Amino acid sequence: MSPQVIFHPKGRTVEVLEGTSLLEAAILAGVEINSACAGKGVCGRCRVVVDGDVETRPSPNITPEEWESGYRLACISKVKGDCTVFVPEESQLNPMQIVGGKVANGLKEMTPVVRGSFVQLRAPTLQDNDGDLERLLKQMGFGPGDLEVPLALLRQLPNVVKEGECRLTAFLDDRHLVDLRPWNCVSRNFGVSIDIGTTTVALQLVDLGTGEVISQVSDYNRQLMHGEDVLARIMYGEDHGHERLRDLIVDTINHMLSRACATNEACVGKGKKVCAKEVNAVVVSGNTTMVHMFLGLDPSGIRYEPYIPVTNLPPRFTAGELGLNINPHASVRLVPGRASYVGGDVVADVVASGMALNDGIGLLIDVGTNGEVVLGNKDWMLACSASAGPAFEGGEVCHGMRAGDGAIEKVSLRNGLRYSTIGNVRPKGLCGSGLIDLLAQLFLTGVLDKKGHLQESDRVRQGEFGREYVLVHSKDVEKDGYDLKATGMSCCPTEKVERHRDITVTEEDIANVIRTKASIYAAAEVLLDTAGITFTDLERVYIAGGFGRHIDLDNAVAIGLLPDLPRERFTFLGNASLDGAKLFMLSKEKREEALSVHRSMTYVELSTDQRFFDRFSSASFLPHTDLDRFPSVR
Amino acid sequence: MSPQVIFHPKGRTVEVLEGTSLLEAAILAGVEINSACAGKGVCGRCRVVVDGDVETRPSPNITPEEWESGYRLACISKVKGDCTVFVPEESQLNPMQIVGGKVANGLKEMTPVVRGSFVQLRAPTLQDNDGDLERLLKQMGFGPGDLEVPLALLRQLPNVVKEGECRLTAFLDDRHLVDLRPWNCVSRNFGVSIDIGTTTVALQLVDLGTGEVISQVSDYNRQLMHGEDVLARIMYGEDHGHERLRDLIVDTINHMLSRACATNEACVGKGKKVCAKEVNAVVVSGNTTMVHMFLGLDPSGIRYEPYIPVTNLPPRFTAGELGLNINPHASVRLVPGRASYVGGDVVADVVASGMALNDGIGLLIDVGTNGEVVLGNKDWMLACSASAGPAFEGGEVCHGMRAGDGAIEKVSLRNGLRYSTIGNVRPKGLCGSGLIDLLAQLFLTGVLDKKGHLQESDRVRQGEFGREYVLVHSKDVEKDGYDLKATGMSCCPTEKVERHRDITVTEEDIANVIRTKASIYAAAEVLLDTAGITFTDLERVYIAGGFGRHIDLDNAVAIGLLPDLPRERFTFLGNASLDGAKLFMLSKEKREEALSVHRSMTYVELSTDQRFFDRFSSASFLPHTDLDRFPSVR
Repeated sequence: MSPQVIFHPKGRTVEVLEGTSLLEAAILAGVEINSACAGKGVCGRCRVVVDGDVETRPSPNITPEEWESGYRLACISKVKGDCTVFVPEESQLNPMQIVGGKVANGLKEMTPVVRGSFVQLRAPTLQDNDGDLERLLKQMGFGPGDLEVPLALLRQLPNVVKEGECRLTAFLDDRHLVDLRPWNCVSRNFGVSIDIGTTTVALQLVDLGTGEVISQVSDYNRQLMHGEDVLARIMYGEDHGHERLRDLIVDTINHMLSRACATNEACVGKGKKVCAKEVNAVVVSGNTTMVHMFLGLDPSGIRYEPYIPVTNLPPRFTAGELGLNINPHASVRLVPGRASYVGGDVVADVVASGMALNDGIGLLIDVGTNGEVVLGNKDWMLACSASAGPAFEGGEVCHGMRAGDGAIEKVSLRNGLRYSTIGNVRPKGLCGSGLIDLLAQLFLTGVLDKKGHLQESDRVRQGEFGREYVLVHSKDVEKDGYDLKATGMSCCPTEKVERHRDITVTEEDIANVIRTKASIYAAAEVLLDTAGITFTDLERVYIAGGFGRHIDLDNAVAIGLLPDLPRERFTFLGNASLDGAKLFMLSKEKREEALSVHRSMTYVELSTDQRFFDRFSSASFLPHTDLDRFPSVR
Repeated sequence: MSPQVIFHPKGRTVEVLEGTSLLEAAILAGVEINSACAGKGVCGRCRVVVDGDVETRPSPNITPEEWESGYRLACISKVKGDCTVFVPEESQLNPMQIVGGKVANGLKEMTPVVRGSFVQLRAPTLQDNDGDLERLLKQMGFGPGDLEVPLALLRQLPNVVKEGECRLTAFLDDRHLVDLRPWNCVSRNFGVSIDIGTTTVALQLVDLGTGEVISQVSDYNRQLMHGEDVLARIMYGEDHGHERLRDLIVDTINHMLSRACATNEACVGKGKKVCAKEVNAVVVSGNTTMVHMFLGLDPSGIRYEPYIPVTNLPPRFTAGELGLNINPHASVRLVPGRASYVGGDVVADVVASGMALNDGIGLLIDVGTNGEVVLGNKDWMLACSASAGPAFEGGEVCHGMRAGDGAIEKVSLRNGLRYSTIGNVRPKGLCGSGLIDLLAQLFLTGVLDKKGHLQESDRVRQGEFGREYVLVHSKDVEKDGYDLKATGMSCCPTEKVERHRDITVTEEDIANVIRTKASIYAAAEVLLDTAGITFTDLERVYIAGGFGRHIDLDNAVAIGLLPDLPRERFTFLGNASLDGAKLFMLSKEKREEALSVHRSMTYVELSTDQRFFDRFSSASFLPHTDLDRFPSVR
């Protein structure tokens, strides 16, 4: 018999082959475990508590006490026999917030990608004996060959005509027939907008008739198990085949689609769930690598100079071609991108921000796993990728985490240490906004110098990974809301173990954050320089990305992430890529705007730009070598 | 163990389930047996000689002597145990002649459905970093979204660009990308035109670069086993599902495609065979029912008033959608039809004839399994279906057969009986032209009266099926070219049996031929009447169809099939549907012509037209009740 693995607290059991890693077993069991290093045992995100027969090895991410208590890394632990595994909260993939929907639709009219048209066909007679299709085309004003008709839909046509007694609803994307339904059926029309991020995927189910968001779900990109950033993924694909990565992102999306449809009552008042077959349109925004992987295109060109993607402007595909579990003839459209490192997600940001419609010059910063910066107005646009790193999304920081329950999102030191967590639960780590607050407050209170070195303080100590600031002593944390009995694994000494996990920020963490903020700031400066203007010329600064719900502007300026401008010039967009995708799906005007952004945008390659490296060096301090730029901090 | 069936003379063995019919077993064994009545034991075409354990029943098509000798009908004989089956020549499906290619291309320029274009892409640089697809589209002059790109081809693009060092050949059907090949590959471009007849299918493999026909093959439509005419097939589909008929015609075509590609050396001088993946275009002409079955569309509307097909003007499909074993992205286009009973085959006839370009009025008669008549010129066109029956294709006539080896194609009685067979081999039956000759000669020599009754004569006798004229006494036939030993079944008394098979024409056969010719003539008259003209106004009469290579015009006029016009006004087109399909494939002008024929053609429904029945009655004599119409016969 194959070994059995039971995962708690979900209580899922799975049978696996001997030698399967616990991480793989968890995937098989439908249990989501955090992982960022592609199973190399490096990132330490997949810590689990094991009782049973596994073969594994120690890791610097697990202290001797933890090891003693049964802590192991799931990715490097191979199943030898039956075992029980507890996945602590910190290693679970938590339901995330979608910080989106900040942009009101503001659409003058609804012109969705796929429209449903009621058509009444002439009843045929011996004299008027055109075929069903010809009558349909004439009624809709199409000439011969003007409409693309999938064979499978043509096969349905005679029955639809018969059932609806010559009255039917035809769903069209421009010149493509997407679905046919008899008139006497309920003819609803749904679409899905998806932001495929390197780390997270967010999806909105939208009524294409009204523009109403029926439901929204988010999930981690399942590709995470094969690398944290796009380059790691491309390398994985080159070694193991890109097909695997395609399957993972398609799985992620299909899983989300079924959640979006199943968990919601659509068309309020009708009490009917949305059937996946009623989804007629998908609009995807994502960085160029994610789009390539989703489409199954070889992304290798993205990795090597001159960084040429297969396409920045993918044509329309169908859900069937892509393996999405909705109406197989549904249109799948992608928000166009501009370059290998400025993708459709950034163009979607721009569309959501509205900066491409303004006379005044705007600066848009998307702080994602990568970081992109766009400068311009309705006439011109410059864009670049800052290669900022994922520090503000919880990467490269020991106790960093994404904005989810338990993330410390606000920190203040002015009147003694205070912090708050998302969901008001026991703190598990720091999300982007919390990190910004903490560093700014440490810097402003003198605990941190401008080079990022921690000074002597009662909370600064020499830790395992060098000097570190202890934000949360585990002994101080109350246990409320954390009932071990409820985990179904009271035999496991988790409580004791948890007490050992202080939440700290090391000097190396701080250096990573400084690198990230410096590269974003330097990237913005290079664009301004290219345009021959300065920060003060900016009418507006847009901030997009999932690094927290509430960023304290003063703190973000204090560390030199954002320029020191009057605070009213800043706009937080949240997940603007998702909003942009939705607008693209709902409005022809917005689709044209995206295409015009694609056309007017000039990509500035920073990797070979000496200006960038000079400005990056100057910005690698708190807040900057040139304090004149930050009068409010001075 | 399952029973084994061995088929001779091919020597094929197959294992089948008990109860399988010999006809089905033959199909499984890849042995082609004639059959026209859908396995009902009626047509008597599937006579085989059986040695072994089968369960069967007598049939009027088998004489007591034949029964004694082992003759059985394959369709009603069920396998009980091992057996050996001899398929006599008369029951084999013989290679047929394609009487086509009479129409010289005469094309001013080649504008094939799919063109190959050489494209040299700009080499990308850090500054000029458009994606591969964008560079391809720009180079070819397409805007975003203007070209339909199958995902599978987009996936190949980066490799093609790499292998060809930015030079490649793109194969396009209008705005559809059909294939991509690196420039340094051999980039050949082939197409296939197919005439799907109810009875026979003919196919030409064409070099789309030169218009040269590389090979042509023909075969029986495998749907024959489920009915001889379109109505029988539709009924079969309604009872057993249309899917089966679709599979059979797709099988037929795939089989022919592999023969067309495999048996020929393409691109003379290069000595390379055509690879099926190099076939980028398919053009199909066929009657409306055949087109529906090929596409998998429900043909039921064709059967019931008001006779509405799903489409007369099918859009473009891909070979992949249709299950054709060529390049899956190859374009499949269909010559448009006009009505349920005037299909794309007739429009293709018209295109091949050129009558739609002339000022003078032409009459086109297609004598197929059905019979269609078209009248008109470049300004207007009338068309109808004569529901003529398959007498001239070998159906409904005891010793009728299609134009293949052994068919008596010429008969003369003027100076004693003389006949000649196709292939100069032992006569097996009569094809259309032989039948016309025989009836005309019998009539002109007084053996047949104008009502179709046989008079006393030394060759007229009372046969099993009534009075009959003996054209060939089996005892007169020499055995040359018919070596029983070579059949591998010398134990079987075939020789003796064959001697019993005289070739005769019964009065019932004659009545069927008269019905067929009368309905064609009457149909033509109704069209003339509708247009307010007479036969003498015709500039030209075109005759299309596979009823023989050489029709004797005087004989055809003598029986009243064709009007008594000066002989130089007649043009024989042969398989004009196939030629029309080829022209459609090679020339944009011809595609536009076909569409304009589709538009300008008025369909005249005869089944409810009293004029037709009156004229049919008058024409149901030899040559006609009104002899004034046939001065040359008088």
